[in-house]
Amino acid sequence: MTSLGDKDSVQTENLFQGSWTQVSCPCCVSDRVEPLVLIRLSDKVQPITKKWLISLIEASQRHGGAALLAHPGEDECGDVIVVSAPRCTLLRATEDLGLCKKYRNGDMVAFSYQDRDNFSNVDDMQEFLTLAERQYIVKNELDSLQAQKKQRIPGVTEATGVLEAWGNVCQKLEKARLIKEILPLHDQQRLKDLGKTWYSQKQIWGQPIDAIHSYFGGTVAFYFSFLDFYIWALVPPALLGLVLTFLMPGGGSSGEAMKKQTTERVMGDDDGPSVSGHMVQAVFSMLWSTLFMEFWKRRSSSLSHRWGTLQLSEGFAEPRPGFHGTLGINPVTGRLEPLFPEWKRQLRVGLVSVPIVGLFMGLVVLGMTGFYHGEALAKGFHQDRGSWFSRALLYLPSVVHIVYTNMLGNVYSTVALQLTEWENHREESSFQNHHTTKVLLFSFFNNFAVLFHIAFYKQDLLLLRKRLASLLIVTQLVNQCTEVLVPFIVDCFLKATQKKQKEDDPEVDKLRAQSLPRFPGLFSEYIELLVQFGYLSLFSCVYPLTAVFLLINNVLEIRGDAYKICKLFRKPFSAPVSNMGVWQTAFEVLGFVSVISNCWLLLLSPRVQEFCLQGGISSKNILLFAILVEHVLILIKMVLAFMIPDEPDWVRIKREQMEFQSMQALGQQKL
Amino acid sequence: MTSLGDKDSVQTENLFQGSWTQVSCPCCVSDRVEPLVLIRLSDKVQPITKKWLISLIEASQRHGGAALLAHPGEDECGDVIVVSAPRCTLLRATEDLGLCKKYRNGDMVAFSYQDRDNFSNVDDMQEFLTLAERQYIVKNELDSLQAQKKQRIPGVTEATGVLEAWGNVCQKLEKARLIKEILPLHDQQRLKDLGKTWYSQKQIWGQPIDAIHSYFGGTVAFYFSFLDFYIWALVPPALLGLVLTFLMPGGGSSGEAMKKQTTERVMGDDDGPSVSGHMVQAVFSMLWSTLFMEFWKRRSSSLSHRWGTLQLSEGFAEPRPGFHGTLGINPVTGRLEPLFPEWKRQLRVGLVSVPIVGLFMGLVVLGMTGFYHGEALAKGFHQDRGSWFSRALLYLPSVVHIVYTNMLGNVYSTVALQLTEWENHREESSFQNHHTTKVLLFSFFNNFAVLFHIAFYKQDLLLLRKRLASLLIVTQLVNQCTEVLVPFIVDCFLKATQKKQKEDDPEVDKLRAQSLPRFPGLFSEYIELLVQFGYLSLFSCVYPLTAVFLLINNVLEIRGDAYKICKLFRKPFSAPVSNMGVWQTAFEVLGFVSVISNCWLLLLSPRVQEFCLQGGISSKNILLFAILVEHVLILIKMVLAFMIPDEPDWVRIKREQMEFQSMQALGQQKL
Repeated sequence: MTSLGDKDSVQTENLFQGSWTQVSCPCCVSDRVEPLVLIRLSDKVQPITKKWLISLIEASQRHGGAALLAHPGEDECGDVIVVSAPRCTLLRATEDLGLCKKYRNGDMVAFSYQDRDNFSNVDDMQEFLTLAERQYIVKNELDSLQAQKKQRIPGVTEATGVLEAWGNVCQKLEKARLIKEILPLHDQQRLKDLGKTWYSQKQIWGQPIDAIHSYFGGTVAFYFSFLDFYIWALVPPALLGLVLTFLMPGGGSSGEAMKKQTTERVMGDDDGPSVSGHMVQAVFSMLWSTLFMEFWKRRSSSLSHRWGTLQLSEGFAEPRPGFHGTLGINPVTGRLEPLFPEWKRQLRVGLVSVPIVGLFMGLVVLGMTGFYHGEALAKGFHQDRGSWFSRALLYLPSVVHIVYTNMLGNVYSTVALQLTEWENHREESSFQNHHTTKVLLFSFFNNFAVLFHIAFYKQDLLLLRKRLASLLIVTQLVNQCTEVLVPFIVDCFLKATQKKQKEDDPEVDKLRAQSLPRFPGLFSEYIELLVQFGYLSLFSCVYPLTAVFLLINNVLEIRGDAYKICKLFRKPFSAPVSNMGVWQTAFEVLGFVSVISNCWLLLLSPRVQEFCLQGGISSKNILLFAILVEHVLILIKMVLAFMIPDEPDWVRIKREQMEFQSMQALGQQKL
Repeated sequence: MTSLGDKDSVQTENLFQGSWTQVSCPCCVSDRVEPLVLIRLSDKVQPITKKWLISLIEASQRHGGAALLAHPGEDECGDVIVVSAPRCTLLRATEDLGLCKKYRNGDMVAFSYQDRDNFSNVDDMQEFLTLAERQYIVKNELDSLQAQKKQRIPGVTEATGVLEAWGNVCQKLEKARLIKEILPLHDQQRLKDLGKTWYSQKQIWGQPIDAIHSYFGGTVAFYFSFLDFYIWALVPPALLGLVLTFLMPGGGSSGEAMKKQTTERVMGDDDGPSVSGHMVQAVFSMLWSTLFMEFWKRRSSSLSHRWGTLQLSEGFAEPRPGFHGTLGINPVTGRLEPLFPEWKRQLRVGLVSVPIVGLFMGLVVLGMTGFYHGEALAKGFHQDRGSWFSRALLYLPSVVHIVYTNMLGNVYSTVALQLTEWENHREESSFQNHHTTKVLLFSFFNNFAVLFHIAFYKQDLLLLRKRLASLLIVTQLVNQCTEVLVPFIVDCFLKATQKKQKEDDPEVDKLRAQSLPRFPGLFSEYIELLVQFGYLSLFSCVYPLTAVFLLINNVLEIRGDAYKICKLFRKPFSAPVSNMGVWQTAFEVLGFVSVISNCWLLLLSPRVQEFCLQGGISSKNILLFAILVEHVLILIKMVLAFMIPDEPDWVRIKREQMEFQSMQALGQQKL
C-alpha cells in the first residue's frame, strides 16, 4: 500500500530519499507536500511494523485510517515517519472542529466543507489554516486512529502486541513503547521571522500576537496577549504605588533622612502608608482588579472572534483519546463512541477528588504548623544548651520542611494527574480545566499559606511587608536569571553544536535534531502571573511598591518567555481555544478574595489601630465597620462586573448573526 | 374588502349576525373559526373607521396587514371586532417565536414552517397550539401592524387622526381612544373543566400545570408550578421548626406550665431556641435555600422543555411595540426596524435609573428615621404634658408615616414604569425584567427596612420575634380574607347578575360581559412569596415556626389564587416564557443575603451572648468567628450551587441535540 518509488501524482520536495504516500482523492494533489508532524519510533521497531503504521496513516477514514500522508524518512528501516495532511482531510477536520474562517463577504463564518468554495484562500492550505492548526489536525487524526477489529500488530511477537477492537492505536503503540513521541515540526524560516518581530529587534511595545497565534496556536497566543494586557494594566497601580510611597507621607524631610526613609520604604522597613493612603489603596485595588478582568474578557472575546474560535464544537467532536466507557450511541451526535454518564463523573469529582485535594491542602497546613512548632522547639533547645549540636539543630526544621514540601508537591502532581484521568473527562478542555484547577489550588495554597499565616494569624504586618518585599525582589531576580540568562547560555552552547552538523547532515537528521526538551506547558508561567496578581491584589495595601516591581519584572518576563518558547523547547501541539479557560476564573476568584483580604488588612494595620485608639472608637465597632465596608465593596464589585458586558458590541452582533443564521438554516434544511 | 354576506369558503359557527372575513390562502379554510381576541372600540367610532380597521386586520402581511380573520360582531356599527387567526398565520408566527413542537419522532423540535408536515397535529390548530399561544399570536400580529405610508385614519377628522409612516397602528388607535381595549376571550367550557381539576373538587395534591399552561400560558403556569414546588419545599423547614419549638428546649415541664410555654413560643414571647438549635437553624436555612433554588432551576428547565420554550428567539423577532429608535437595518436579522444602541440604554440604566431608584430607597429610610424620631418626640411631649392633645399627637407620627409611605409608593410605581419605558428595551422580556427589578427592590426595601432596623440597629431580637410572629399571623390572616373570602362573595353577586342575562342575550353581549377587571399581573403574588421567603430565610432562626405558618398559608393561597385568576379577572395575554425571569434571580439573591443575615442574627442572639460570657470568650473573638462562619457558609453555598447542574441530564442532552442539529443544518444549507 505504501508507494516508495517516484509517483506522478505527488511530487515531494525531494528532501528525503523515500517519497510520500499517494493521495487518494484527485482534488488534494499538490506540487508541494509540507512535512507537519514527526513520529519517532523506537529503534527496535521492525520494518513490517513501520510499513503497517504507514499504511494505517494513509488509508482513508472509511477503511479505519487517518487519511494523512506519510513519508518513511531516509528509508524503510529508519526510526521516523514524517506525516502531512492532504487538503480534503484538513478541510473536513476544520469543519469538525467548528473553526470559523473568512467567508466570501469578509465575515468569519463556521467552516462548512460542502460550502468550501465560498471561503477565502480555500485552495491554499498554508493561508487557509495556520501552521498550528494544520499540525493540531494531523495530531488529532493520528490520535483518533482506532483498530477496526481485534488484531496483532505486525512484527510484534510479545504479549503486548494485541490491539483490541475499537482500541486506540497510537495510545497502544506508545504504551508498548513502539512510538517514542509524536511532535510537530518547526518551520525554521518562519520561526526566525517570528523571533525577529518578537524579541530580537528593538520591538519594545506590543506583541505580534497574530503571528504567534498562527505559529504556536491559541493557548500560547492567549498567554502572551494576556501578559501584554497585564503589563499595560499594571501601569496605573504602579503609578499609584510610587505616589503613595514617595509623595504622600513624607514632605518636609530632605537629604540624608529622605534617602534613608526611601531605602526603608523600598525594603519594607517603615510601618506602611498612612490611613488614608491605605484606604485609597484598598478601594483602588478592588476597582482595578474588577476592571482589569472585565476588560480582559472583552479583549479575549474579540481575539477569539479574530481567530475564528467563537463557535468551537468540542462537545460534538470525537472524545479525547484517554476517554473510556461502554460503547454506545452518543445521544447528541448519533455516533458510535464510548459513553460515560455525567452523574458518575460528578460523583467522582465531588466524593473523591474534592476530599483528596482537601487532604493535601491540610497536609500543607500541617507541614507549616509542624515547621513553626519545630522551630520554636529548636530555639528553646538551643537557648537551653547552646552547643554546636543545638546550633546545627536550628536548621533542622527548615530542612525537614523543605524536603516535606517538595515530596508533597511531587506526590500531589502525580495524584492530581491520575485523579483527573480517573474522572474520565470526555473533552480535552474539560480535562485540562480540572487538572489545572487541582494543581493551581495546591500551588496557590503553597505560595500563600505562609503569607496568610503572617497576616491573619500572627497579625504581624511589618513582617508581612518585609516578606513581600523580599519575595518580590529576590524571587523575581532569581526567576529572571533562571528564565532568561541560563537559557541564553544553554542556547549558545546549542548553536555551537548545531553548526557542526548543519552542512553535511541529511534532512532527516535535521528533523531529528528538533527533539529539544518537551515544552512543559504554560502552567508555570500562568501560576507565576497568578501569584504575582495575588501579591498585588491581596497584600498591595501593605506594600504599595508591589506593582512597580511586577511591572519591571513582566517587561523582562514577556521577552524571556518568548525567547524560551522559540528556542529552547520542542514546538508544542496547541488545540484551538476560545479563551484562557480556567485561568480566567482563577484570576476572577482571586479578585474576590482580594476584597476580603484588603478589608481585613486595613483593619489590622497599625496606623488604623492607632487612629482608632486616638479617636476613642472601640475595636468592636471598628470590626463592624470593616464588615460593612467589605460587604459594600463586594456588592460594588459584583454590580460593576455585571454592568460591563463580557464582549464588545460588535462581537455580540457577530455572534448573534451566526446564531440567527444557524436558526434559519435549521428551518430551511428540514424541507 | 370585508365580506359581510355568507361566503362559501368560510363557514362560521353562526354565533353572530355578521360573518368572518375571507381567508386568503386555500390551505387555511376550515369549518370552524374560533373567536380568539376581542377588540373593544370606543362608542364614537365611525363605521368607516371600523371597516378600515377590519380590512387592515384581514389584509395579508405583504400588504401591511395582520393576515388575521376579523368579525364585525352584531353589525357594522357595533363597538367590537372579534379576531381569529387562519392556520398559516399561526404556523408562521410559531416559527417566528421559536416555539418547539412535537416532531414526527416524538422529540420537541423548533417549529419550521417549511417542514410543517412532519410535526404532530399540524392540521388541528386547537391541538397544535395552546389557547394561550393562539391568543398571544393574534395579539402579537395586531401589535405589529404598521402603517405603510403616512395616512389619515378614515372617519377621524381630528388632528390626532394622522398615522405616520411605519407608525404602530394599534398604539396610535389606543392613544386616540378609538380602541378601548384588546382582550383574549375566555372559553367557558374549558374554563369550567380547568376549574374542576384545579380548585373545585377534592383535588388537594398537585396542580394541573399542563392544563394551566395550555389555558393561561407560560407566566401563569410557571407561577403555579413554583408555588406548588415551594409548598413541598416548605415541609422540611416546617418540621424542623416544630421540632425546635416543641421538642428541643422543654422536656420536663408539663400541664399548665407546658401550655403557657407553648403559647409563649407561638406568640414569640420567650427568648428563642437554644444556642445549638439556633446554629442548626442557621446552617439548615443556608442549605435549604440553596437546594431549593437549585432544584427549582432543574424543574423549571424541564418544564420549559415540555412546553417547548427552550429555544425562544425573542432577540430575533420584531421589537416590542413601545420600542423606538432611528430606522435602520438590524445587523443580525437584516430586517428594517428601529435601532437603538445598547451602550445608550446601559448609560440610561446606569447613570439615571440606578441613582433614581437609590434616591427613592433613601426616601424610605428617611421616612422610617423620621417616624422613629417623631415617635420619640411625641412620647416625650406626652410625658411632659399628658393632655388629651398630646395623647392624640401620639398617633400623628404613624399617620404621617403611613400617608408618606403610600404616596411614595404611588409616585415610585409611576416613576419606575416611565423610567423603564425611557430605557427603551427592545425585547418585552427585558422590559419586564427591568421594570420588575425596580418595583421589587422598592417593595422589598419597604417590607424589610423595619425588620432590619430592629434586628441590626436596635439589636432587639425579642421585638423582632414578636414583630415576625404578628406579621406572619395577622398579615396572612388579613391576606387570606381579602384574597379568598372577599372574591368569593363578589363572585356570588356576579353569578346572580350573570344568570339574568344568560338566557336571552345575543352571543356578542356575552363576550362583552367578559370585560371583568383587568388582570393585575402576577407581581403582587410573586412579591408575597418573595417576602415570605425573606421572613423564612432571613430571620427564621429567630422564630422557627415561620415555615409552619407559611406552609398553612400557601396551601390556602394556591387555591385562592387559582380561583381568582379563573373567575374574577379578565383572561390575561401571556407570552411564551422559558422561566420565571427576574424572580428567579431575586430568590437567589435573597438566599445569599440570608446567609449573611443568619450569621449576624446568630451573633446577636441573647443566648449566644450569654453562652460567650459564661465561656469567657471576648466579644471581638466571637465577632471574628462569625465572620469566618459567614465566609465559609457563603463558600459552601456557592460550591453547592455550582455542583448541582441547572438542568437535568436529559434536558441537557435534548438541548445539545438541537444545537448539534442546527450546527449541521448551517453546514448543509450553504450548498
